[in-house]
Amino acid sequence: MDLQLPPGKIWQQLASHFQTLSDVSLQDYFAAEPDRGQRLAIEFGPLYLDYSKNHINQQTLDLLLELCNECQLDQHIADLFSGSVINNSEQRAARHTALRNPEYLTDTVFKQQLQTEKRRIIQLHEALANGQIAGFSNKAIKTLVNIGVGGSDIGPRLIVNALRTTSDEPAVHFISNLDSHDATKVLAAADPETTLFIVASKSFTTLETRQNFQRAQDWLLAGGCPATALEQHFVAATARPQAALAAGINSDRIFSFDTSIGGRYSIWSIAGLTAMLAIGPRQYDEFLQGAAALDTHFVNSDPGTNMPVILALLDIWYRNFFNTAARAVVPYEQRLADLPAYLTQLFMESNGKSVSRDGQSLSWQTGGVIFGGTGTTVQHSFFQSLHQGTTLIPVDFLVASQGDSDHAALFASCVAQARALMLGTTDNSLPAHQVCHGNRPSNLLLYENLTPYVLGMLLALYEQRAFVQACLWNINPFDQWGVELGKQIAGDLQDKLTGTQKMADADDDLGDDSSTRRLLQHYRHNKNQK
Amino acid sequence: MDLQLPPGKIWQQLASHFQTLSDVSLQDYFAAEPDRGQRLAIEFGPLYLDYSKNHINQQTLDLLLELCNECQLDQHIADLFSGSVINNSEQRAARHTALRNPEYLTDTVFKQQLQTEKRRIIQLHEALANGQIAGFSNKAIKTLVNIGVGGSDIGPRLIVNALRTTSDEPAVHFISNLDSHDATKVLAAADPETTLFIVASKSFTTLETRQNFQRAQDWLLAGGCPATALEQHFVAATARPQAALAAGINSDRIFSFDTSIGGRYSIWSIAGLTAMLAIGPRQYDEFLQGAAALDTHFVNSDPGTNMPVILALLDIWYRNFFNTAARAVVPYEQRLADLPAYLTQLFMESNGKSVSRDGQSLSWQTGGVIFGGTGTTVQHSFFQSLHQGTTLIPVDFLVASQGDSDHAALFASCVAQARALMLGTTDNSLPAHQVCHGNRPSNLLLYENLTPYVLGMLLALYEQRAFVQACLWNINPFDQWGVELGKQIAGDLQDKLTGTQKMADADDDLGDDSSTRRLLQHYRHNKNQK
Repeated sequence: MDLQLPPGKIWQQLASHFQTLSDVSLQDYFAAEPDRGQRLAIEFGPLYLDYSKNHINQQTLDLLLELCNECQLDQHIADLFSGSVINNSEQRAARHTALRNPEYLTDTVFKQQLQTEKRRIIQLHEALANGQIAGFSNKAIKTLVNIGVGGSDIGPRLIVNALRTTSDEPAVHFISNLDSHDATKVLAAADPETTLFIVASKSFTTLETRQNFQRAQDWLLAGGCPATALEQHFVAATARPQAALAAGINSDRIFSFDTSIGGRYSIWSIAGLTAMLAIGPRQYDEFLQGAAALDTHFVNSDPGTNMPVILALLDIWYRNFFNTAARAVVPYEQRLADLPAYLTQLFMESNGKSVSRDGQSLSWQTGGVIFGGTGTTVQHSFFQSLHQGTTLIPVDFLVASQGDSDHAALFASCVAQARALMLGTTDNSLPAHQVCHGNRPSNLLLYENLTPYVLGMLLALYEQRAFVQACLWNINPFDQWGVELGKQIAGDLQDKLTGTQKMADADDDLGDDSSTRRLLQHYRHNKNQK
Repeated sequence: MDLQLPPGKIWQQLASHFQTLSDVSLQDYFAAEPDRGQRLAIEFGPLYLDYSKNHINQQTLDLLLELCNECQLDQHIADLFSGSVINNSEQRAARHTALRNPEYLTDTVFKQQLQTEKRRIIQLHEALANGQIAGFSNKAIKTLVNIGVGGSDIGPRLIVNALRTTSDEPAVHFISNLDSHDATKVLAAADPETTLFIVASKSFTTLETRQNFQRAQDWLLAGGCPATALEQHFVAATARPQAALAAGINSDRIFSFDTSIGGRYSIWSIAGLTAMLAIGPRQYDEFLQGAAALDTHFVNSDPGTNMPVILALLDIWYRNFFNTAARAVVPYEQRLADLPAYLTQLFMESNGKSVSRDGQSLSWQTGGVIFGGTGTTVQHSFFQSLHQGTTLIPVDFLVASQGDSDHAALFASCVAQARALMLGTTDNSLPAHQVCHGNRPSNLLLYENLTPYVLGMLLALYEQRAFVQACLWNINPFDQWGVELGKQIAGDLQDKLTGTQKMADADDDLGDDSSTRRLLQHYRHNKNQK
C-alpha cells in the first residue's frame, strides 16, 4: 500500500523501517528482549506508563523521536506555554496551561481577572456550604444543576463522578441535551425551592444552553417561584458577561473568563465553575496542581522519557503507518466512566482536521476515532472484536495500582487483557474459532489512586498528547470550524418547520435536496395529523 | 488498493463497479436524480428509512442485492427462524426470534418453559405492584436492583431509561462492574429493608455478577437483615437454576431460560426479567410485538425493500469497498442514550470475527467499530471529525418524527447534520479551514414516537442487520470465543496476587513476560507499602 505521509526525510525513513518490521510480532520482541517490560516504561510521580506492548524496536523509537526535531516540537511547546497566538484561524492564544500554573500567568489583565473570579467562587462555595445561599422561599440551596453542553458539560460531569461520593452535599446534576427529556428527568428529582442552576456557556448564545436555561426558568415559575425571585436561582459562567446580564442573570452571580479558553479546556477555567463548587477549592487546587506537574514533566523531559510525547509518537506510528482508524480507551475504574466520552471530544474535535495550519489540504491521515468504556464491563462488549476482529485497534488501559481488598481482581483483569492481546492463545490444539493470534498492541497506564491530583495529571497527559499529535500532523488543534455548517442549516430548517409564513409555502420550498425535503414533509405531515 | 473480498463473481463485479464511481459525489447523485430522496427510502409501519445519502446508484443496489442470492441469504434466514443449529461452534440454535413471536415457537419443551416462567413473572409483577413482596422487616419492596453484566445489564438498562419516567415505581437501578465503586454508589441511595435484587446470569458463574451478588448480601447483613431472611431480597434469572439454588436463591424466586439464548439477546428472554418488571407485562408485550413485526418484515419483504437487508448491504459496501473501519450511531433522543453502547456490544461482539463458519481464516474485513452518542450533545464532540476529518465515517441518524412543541429544533438539528455531511459548504469565499467538502454518507431513520413497540422494532432491525452482515461475510455471529482467553489469564494473575503461597514466590515467577511481571510487581510493591 502507498503510504501518504507528511513531507520530511524522517517520515520516509520510518516508511522504509516499517517494511522491515512486517514479520516481527510482539511475542518475538518479548522473547528477544528479557528486559523489555522494564525498559519501555516511564515513571513520573504516581503515574507509571508501560508502552512495551507496542510494535516498536529501538530503531523505531529513535526515528520517531527524530520526528520531534523535524517538526520543531520544542518551538511549538514554547509557543503554547508562552501564550503566543497559536490558534491562528481564530487569532487567539490557547491559555489553558496558564490556568493551572501561575508561572505561566504572564498576562496581568488575564491574571487579575482569574484571581478575582476565583476569590468570588471561593466565597460562593463557602456561602453554599454554610447554607447562606437561599432560594425564593428562603430555604437554603441543596441541589446544583449545571446547564451546559460540550466542554461546559462533560468536564465538570467527569470531575463530579470521579471525585465525589454520593453523600457529598449539595447534590450536583447536569442538563445538556436540546431534547427536553434530559431536563425533565433531572428536574423531576429536584425541588424548585432549593435548586441553584449554573449556566455555563462561553458565548452565552449556545442553542442547547439557552433552551435549557429557559426550561429551568419555566420550571421554577411553575414551582411557585415569583418572577422577581428568579435571579436567586441562577449563576452564570461565561466569556460574555454582558450577554448573561441581558438574559437576566444578576451581575453578582456572573463569573467571567477569557475568550482564549477553548470549550474543550473548560474544566481548567471559570467555565468549570460547577466542578469547583462540587469538589471545593482545596480539592480543585490539587486537581490543577496535578495538571501543572504533568505540564512541567512535558516541558522539561527529554522526548524519550516524556509521557505525552511517547504516547503521541505511538499514535502517529499506528495511524500513519499501520493505517489504524480507531483507538479504544478503557479505564478499569467505575468512577472514570465519563473519561472515554471526555477523550472522544478532546481528540476528535481537536484533531479531526483536513487542512494544515496554513490552510493546505492534507494528503495524510489525522485524528481517527477514539471510543471506549469502563472495564471490566466492556470486556463483555467490544473486547471480542479487539481479540478476534479483522481490524487492528490499539488500546489504552488505565488502572489504579492501589485499592480495597477487592481490587486485586480488577487489577488482574486489566493486566490480563493487555497480556492476552499481546500473547494470544498458546494451546495449539484449539479449534480455529477459539484461537486468538495475539500480536495486538496496547499501552497500560498505572496510577496509584484516583485523587484530584492524579485526575489532573491524567487529563493534562491526554491534552498534551493531542497537542503533540497536532504538531506532528501540522494542524491547528484549537479550532473546530467543522461544526458551524450543521448549526446554520439547522437554523434554516427550523424556520421552515415552525415559521408561520413558511408553513404556508409549497412543499417543494422546504429544502434544497429531495431527501431533506421529504424528511421535512414527514415531520409536517405527522404534525398536521396530531 | 487491492481489495480483499470474499469469493464469488458478484463481489468481483462490485469491485469493478466501485472503480467507476470514484469521481461521483453525493451532490452529483442528488443533482442528477430529482426523485432520489423519495426513491431510496423504505417505509414500514412507524419506521421510515431514508438511505438516499449513500454512495450508490441503481447498479450498485442491483449488484448488492445479487450478493444476497450468492450467499443464499434466504436459506440462512429460514435456518434462523426454524431453530436450526446455526451457532455451529457451540452446537446451538439461536432462538431469540422465537421469544418474540409465538409462530416460531415450535419446540414444545421450550415453549412450555417460556410460558410457565412468564406467568410466574406476571404474578411477581402484580405482587410487587400490590406491595405484597416484603423485605426482612416486612416493609414492601420499593427498589429493584439488577445485578448482571454484558447482555444481562445493557438491554434492561436501555429499556428502563427509554420507556420509564422517573416517577414510575418501584425505582430501578443497575450494578454491573467488578469495581466495587459501582455497587457502592448504587447502594448508597437504597434502603436494605425495601430493596430486591435481581441476579441475572446465564451461567450463574459470571465473575462480576457473583462478586456483586456477594456485595449485595454483605450490604443487607450490614443493614440489619438476618441471614435467614436474605432470600427474601433476591430473585434470579438464569439458564442454570441449580447453580442459583446452590447459591442460596429460593427456588420460588428462580426464573430459568434456555441455553440457546445468547447473552446479547437477553432482553427478549427471561434474562430480561428486570425490564419486564420495570415496564410491566403489557408494555413488555408491545415491545415484543414490535420486534416480531420487524421480523415479519425481514422474512417476507423482497431484499430491495427490506430494511435490515438494505442497511447490511450498505454496511458491506462501505466496509469492504471503501475500507471504512467505523460507523457512528447517533439517536436524537435523550431516552435512547444507552442505544449506542447497546449496539457496540451487538455488532462488535457478534461480528468481530476472523474465521469463517467452517473455521477458515478470512482475508476480508468483518465488523468494525460501532460508536456513538446522543444528539444534539455529540454535535459538540466528535462531529467536528465527521465533517472535516480525513477519515470517512458513515453515520446512522435516528430521530422521532413527532414530539412536543420543542421538538422541531431537535428534528431540524438531526436532518441538518445529515444534509451538511452530504452537501458541505457552498460558499466559495470561505477560507480553507472553514470549508466542509461534504460527500459524507449517512442513513436517517425516522420513527413516529418512542413507544415500546417502536423500541422493539428498532432493536430487531439492528439485530437482523447484524445477522445479514454475518451471512454476507460467512461468519457465525452467535458465539464470542475471543473473550475467553483474557478471563483465563485474569484468574491466573489474580491467584498470583492474592494466593498466600504464591506471594512467597520469587518475583520472576509472577508472570511469563517482562511487562506483565513488572506490572504485578508494581501492585505488590504498592500493597506492601500500605
